[in-house]
Formats: sequence, C-alpha cells, structure tokens
Amino acid sequence: MEESWATLGVDLHLEPTGAGGLRRGLTDALRDAVRTGRLAPGTRLPSSRSLATDLGIARNTVAEAYADLVAEGWLTARQGSGTRVAAGAPAPFPGTGASPRRREPERPAHSLLPGIPDLAAFPRTEWLKAARRALAAAPYDALGYGDPRGRPELRAALAGYLARVRGVRTDPETVLITSGFTHALRITAAMLGARGVRTVAVESYGLDTYWGLLRQAGLATPALPFDEHGTDTGGLHGAGAVLLTPAHQFPMGTPLHPDRRAAVVDWARRTGGLVLEDDYDGEFRYDRQPVGALQGLAPDRVVYFGTASKSLAPGLRLGWMVLPPSLAEAAAAAKGGTDTVGVLEQLTLAEFITSGAYDRHVRSCRLRYRRRRDALAASVSARAPEVTVTGIAAGLHAVLLLPPGMERSVVQAAAWQGLALHGLSFHRHPQAVAEPLDALVVGYATPPDSAWAGALEALCRVLP
Amino acid sequence: MEESWATLGVDLHLEPTGAGGLRRGLTDALRDAVRTGRLAPGTRLPSSRSLATDLGIARNTVAEAYADLVAEGWLTARQGSGTRVAAGAPAPFPGTGASPRRREPERPAHSLLPGIPDLAAFPRTEWLKAARRALAAAPYDALGYGDPRGRPELRAALAGYLARVRGVRTDPETVLITSGFTHALRITAAMLGARGVRTVAVESYGLDTYWGLLRQAGLATPALPFDEHGTDTGGLHGAGAVLLTPAHQFPMGTPLHPDRRAAVVDWARRTGGLVLEDDYDGEFRYDRQPVGALQGLAPDRVVYFGTASKSLAPGLRLGWMVLPPSLAEAAAAAKGGTDTVGVLEQLTLAEFITSGAYDRHVRSCRLRYRRRRDALAASVSARAPEVTVTGIAAGLHAVLLLPPGMERSVVQAAAWQGLALHGLSFHRHPQAVAEPLDALVVGYATPPDSAWAGALEALCRVLP
Repeated sequence: MEESWATLGVDLHLEPTGAGGLRRGLTDALRDAVRTGRLAPGTRLPSSRSLATDLGIARNTVAEAYADLVAEGWLTARQGSGTRVAAGAPAPFPGTGASPRRREPERPAHSLLPGIPDLAAFPRTEWLKAARRALAAAPYDALGYGDPRGRPELRAALAGYLARVRGVRTDPETVLITSGFTHALRITAAMLGARGVRTVAVESYGLDTYWGLLRQAGLATPALPFDEHGTDTGGLHGAGAVLLTPAHQFPMGTPLHPDRRAAVVDWARRTGGLVLEDDYDGEFRYDRQPVGALQGLAPDRVVYFGTASKSLAPGLRLGWMVLPPSLAEAAAAAKGGTDTVGVLEQLTLAEFITSGAYDRHVRSCRLRYRRRRDALAASVSARAPEVTVTGIAAGLHAVLLLPPGMERSVVQAAAWQGLALHGLSFHRHPQAVAEPLDALVVGYATPPDSAWAGALEALCRVLP
Repeated sequence: MEESWATLGVDLHLEPTGAGGLRRGLTDALRDAVRTGRLAPGTRLPSSRSLATDLGIARNTVAEAYADLVAEGWLTARQGSGTRVAAGAPAPFPGTGASPRRREPERPAHSLLPGIPDLAAFPRTEWLKAARRALAAAPYDALGYGDPRGRPELRAALAGYLARVRGVRTDPETVLITSGFTHALRITAAMLGARGVRTVAVESYGLDTYWGLLRQAGLATPALPFDEHGTDTGGLHGAGAVLLTPAHQFPMGTPLHPDRRAAVVDWARRTGGLVLEDDYDGEFRYDRQPVGALQGLAPDRVVYFGTASKSLAPGLRLGWMVLPPSLAEAAAAAKGGTDTVGVLEQLTLAEFITSGAYDRHVRSCRLRYRRRRDALAASVSARAPEVTVTGIAAGLHAVLLLPPGMERSVVQAAAWQGLALHGLSFHRHPQAVAEPLDALVVGYATPPDSAWAGALEALCRVLP
C-alpha cells in the first residue's frame, strides 16, 4: 500500500460517519481528500481489494465508491494503470477566504428613511391563519406553473378591493400580479419600449432607482416642473408616458391638483400617451378620505401600480398593476411565459383581503402612524420653531423644511448621531428646474413602536 | 331642481349604503353615476343646499362629497357656474365585455407532460409548520427590502444541503436565490452579455423556452452534438459559455460521460469559458447514488442552477444559483438592487431544509416515483413490445423510443384521447445534427396518485 494512501486511511474517519451508509461515507471522504488537495492529481489509489481489506468492508462497496467518483470526474480508471486521482482535479475551493466578501453595512441606531412601514407591526398571526386557510382551499394544481398574470383568486380580490377603496375601475382580467413596484416598472418599460415609446417624463422629486431603471431600458426621463399644485404636466409634448404619484407626491406629499389631474388625462386621450400612476401609499390618509385613483378617470389610458410593501411588508414581494384592457396581454407577455411570483403568498394575500384582515390591519396602521405624525409635528413645532413640517395629510413620511442652506449639515449631524435620514436633495431629479429646497424627508413609520420615541428624540436633537 | 338630478336622486339608494358613512355613500353614488354615463359631461349638479334638503342630510356632507369628487376630477367647480360633471369624464369602463378575454385552454383528461412533480403530494401540513416556526424566529427587519442575494438563512441552508447531497462546493456568500430557473437564466444572460459573451452553446435536446430567453438577450445558441455518451462539447471553440444538464440530460436521460465531464471542465479552464449546469432533478436517481454535480470539479468555472420546482412545487417560485466567487457580485447586481423573491417563502424553505423535512419529503417522492417508473416500464414492455423505455435511471420522466416514423401519429392519438404528451421532436433543437428519433417524453411524476393508473392506461392505449 502506498504512503499517500496510508495517510488518507487515517483521515477517513469511516467508522462514525455511517449516516448515508458505508459506501456514501467512503465516497464523501475520498472526494474531500481530492478536493482539499490531500490527494494530489495523478496519485494512484490502492486496488479496491486492498482498500476493502484495510477498512474491513466489502470489496464491492469500495468498487462502487470508486465508480461513483470516476463518474463525477474526481478519479480516472484506465485499463492497466488502475484508479488515479484525475489530472484536472481542482484546487481548493476558491471562495474560501480568498474572495472579497461583501461587508454588511453598519446599522444605524435609528432609521427615519422613508418608504418602509413598521415591520414589527406585521400581522404574523393573522397572516399565518390566512395562509392555512388559503392552502387548505387551494386545488393541487394551483401549485404548478401558473398564468403569468397571477393567481385568479388574488386578481379578483384586488379588483374588488381597489374599486372599493381607491376608486379604481378594473376587473380581474386587467390585473397583473408582480413582485413589487420595481418589477412592475420593469415590465412597463419593456412594454413601452416594444411600442416605440422613447421618453417617459418623470416628476422633479422621486426615486432615482426608478428613473435609472427606465433609463437602463433605453428610455429618456426628463423632469416635469413642480409647484404647490403638484407636478405640472403642461410640457409633456414629446413624451409617450408620464410617471406620477398623483394621490400623494413622493416625497413632497402634495396631491395633484384637480385641474392637473384633468389636464394629464386630457393629454393622454389626445396623444395616445400613457399615465403611469404609482399609488404607493394610497391607503394612508389621515384627516379625510384618500384622494381617489387617477385611473378611475381614464382606465384606458392609465397604468395603475400598487403594492403590499407599505400596507404589510416589502419582504412579501407582492405588487400589482391594473392595465388598460388593450395592454393587458402585452404586459403579461412582458412578465414572461409563466408566473414568477410565489403562489402561496398570492393565495394568502387573497384570503387576507377577502376575509377583511387587510382592512383591519390598514386601519390599525393608520391609527399608529397618525399618532406618530401628530407627535412629530408637535415635537418639531415645540423644539425647532424654524422648521416647517409639510406633506403630512397622508402617507408614511413628512417633509421638514429647513432654513436655507442647512440641509447638508443637518443630514451630516444625523449621520454622526447614528440616525439614518435623507435630505430632500437625495430625491431631487438632476434636471429639476425649480430652486432647490433645503429639507429632510422623514419616514416616521419606519421604526418599530419601541424605537419610535428614541428616533424622534434623535431627530429633534439635530434640527436647528 | 333639474330633470337629470331628480333621476339621480331616485337611484342614489342612500339610506341603506351607510357602510362608510353618509358622505362616503354619497360620494360613491355620485361617482358611479358619472362613471356609468348616467350623468353626462357638463351636467350641472344641484347646489349643495338643495341636494342636502332633498336627501335630508347636512349641507356640509354634500359640500364635502362634491369637494372630494372635484379633487378626483369627476366634477368641476367654477365661480358662477356651480358644480358640473367634468368635461373629460370617462366613458363606461372599456374592459367590460368589449376587450378580448384570454380563453382558458381546455384541460386534458390526463397529463404526462414532463417537468412537473406530483403536486397533490406537496407536504402542506409540514410546510405550514415550517412557515410558523420560520416566522416566529424571524427578526422583524427580515420583512423589509432585502439583500438581492436572498435571505442569509436560506443561502446557508442551501450551501450545506448542496454540499452534502450534490457534492457542490460553495458557501452562503456565493449562493443567489431566484424565483426559479428562468429567473436565474435571465440573470445569467444579463451577466454574460455584460462580460462580452455572444454565444452560449446548448444541447441538441432541451427546452426552447430557455434557448429563446438566451436569444432574446442577444446571445447565439448553437446546438452541440449528442450521442450515447451525452452531449459532445468538443466543438465549443467560439462559445463563451455552455448550458448543460450533466447529471441527467433533459429529456434524453443519460448522464454526461466522465470523459466529457473532464473535457468540458478542461475547456472552461483553458478558455475562461463558463459551464452553466442545470441540475434540474438532481435529487431523483433510483438505482444508485445520484451523479454528483459537475460544479464540484470546477467551482470557479461552473454556474450551478437548482430549484424547488421538481422537489416541492413550481408554484413556490424558489430557485438558486451557486456562482464562481468572482461572479457572485455581478450576479447579485444583475438580479437588481433589492431582493425580488418573497422573504417568507425563503425563510420557510430554510427551515424546511434544516429541520430535515426536505430530505424526508424527497425520499418519500423518490419512493413514489420509482414505483411509477417501474409500473411504466412493466406496462410498456407487456403491452407495447415495439417500444423501448429509456432514460429511467433518474428523474421524473422517461423517453419511450417508438418505431421509426410513428411519433407524430402517436402524439396525435394521445391528443384525441385527452392525454397531454410531448413527442421528442418538441424538445429537439432546430439545428441539431443527429438523425431525428421518434420518441415520446413521458412525465410520469405529473399526475396525482389518484390519476396515475388512468394516465398510464391512456398511454398504453395509444402506443403501437
């Protein structure tokens, strides 16, 4: 028996690792030995007979283990030269230690970043109950490859819910389920590109992630002017579509003025353009009934977008589009040949909506967030009289107007305090024409209840 | 009071619809009236005072309802001309009746299409238990926007599982969670395109969906020759990558010969090419231990793909990639800025794997499918001696070789019998060079247990 094999024999630890049977234990041990370089390429292995004797096991077991490893390419077996470690056997796993690891970003003590609801308030028990009911009711073939538009149960539940709560005019045939707004916007960009659209006008304030996604799809994204009536869509001449947040401009917080709503619908009708209505937090309005969806005015010219990310949690990855009937097929095709969104989550959300749990959860969140909003307004007014709180009629965030020139230093001070916060300039379109405002965008829904008071205190400390 | 208003008053049904309060009921009723065309554009509405008197409600309620609808664009309010239905008020919902509906395809009585497991065997109770444990253990911020690579719990569980069961060499840093193989291939195509790859060689047999996806991404997909040793990768000269099913060629069922495994790894090392290893049903081998993953031979040159679609259910939309460490960041970036796969499903699968429920389920399926495979082989041999069953050492389907020239008529006869079935030509690359074979691809895992005997009987009836 060769030297190298004696060493291997010692390291095999065959006796205890019988979990998968002797042959499996032997195969794994041999594979590891080759993998880690303990057995160098070209090393000749003992005959199956001698190894079997050495290990006190059946010869056949060794022969089968060798055959497995020959089949996998670790060993070679040639007439006359016995079994050897293959010449191309690999170096140690290159990922171990050598590769640059992604460092986890350091977590701030407090976060008031906008766009995230209180995740600690996610209704875990109710969600699981709905999941159990949904799974019990689902036919077995619901678990197969599905219609790209999404599960019919969820499309029907959403069609009813959106008509009732947001004034959206739809039916299940024109609803498309997505994994969130980003996915929906990707689908839309592909669909617009295929229709020859080259320009999607956007608002002066918003999220660069979305503008970037449109640009990546080859679309130009000029910025529309913004004033106290919201986004001015008067200059839409060349655009094939416009991306708006009509119910509650993100992040400025103003609803689109009725005249402007009428004007943009008129533009779409006149030119065949499309309005992309991002109704990202439509359920959350505190002092009066929410402004209805623009889609209701022109279902044939508006693509409506909503998600469960603000009302439940982003981690569900559930969103929806309501499409003009003429575009429903094209959008489903742009999404792909089969559904890409998990069926169980879809069925659970459908059950969650139809059972009334969704309405109850939204109402309870509305109460929680309204209290926080009121506390924010009261604290800022008491402790930072130079700061004006705006955009708080609705939504999960407020805009705090600062004295001119102060935004950068306040955001910097917040970072020092371990408070994650965006200045308004973070959300400003690079080609926006209006005078830049110094302001903070404060996501007051973001902290869990237990951290809210601390986050508010940290905010007040950095305000001028 | 005008005529049109009297009509409207009758139709308002205000008394019973008090669910959302009087104002809400009034707003909804008015909106509906405009929407359905009952109130034509330009129609002047009664003053809020007179309508309030008429309805016996507070004037303020009517004024607020009017204001809501002005804000939404349904009505206009102008000094001196009162409140009117807006000129741009929409026609009835264009989707109702007018749009072409997608017809549900007629369902065949039996399906033996490949690629789908027995969905009736989905372990609903165990899955829900895992979901409950996973959700109870999850930190609240797991429900937020996540790392595009996927949840660390699932990446760790998969890294361990794939190393143990498939001989994959990885760690959680190089695992990427996807919504299935299609999503993973999309990510890969984007990544390859960005690296300047123009050609991905594919096998002579496979799925046109995948080839089409690569072509859509601008990649050429020439076919490699195929023989009894599997795909011949000798002619890979110009390709930047090759898409293979090494453990169990889809659909032919042969494992890639050890020499060919070595040769393709050698090609990749020599040229810097990438092997895309689709390990679509790696867990299912019946007569001996599965062939290990090719990835284990060259983790720095192989992108490994797996999913839960065959082992659990396609509807979960859960898949994974194992990437060479040098490509892990690029793949995560190609997936997008945040995770697009539902967090709860990811956490549940992680718990399902680490608790041992996944192994138990796979073993139980293996037993079920092996019995079906044996029944298929026995029935065909007894009732159709001219037909040869091949490719049955592993996987969820078999290839039934027919006498020359018979494929089309057998597939046609199956369709008449209500039996969904693919001929091998359905899976043949248009540029494949080998002589076409007449054969059927029979997915024997597809029917639920209750329908299996009937499906097998239907199959035997159409065989020559």
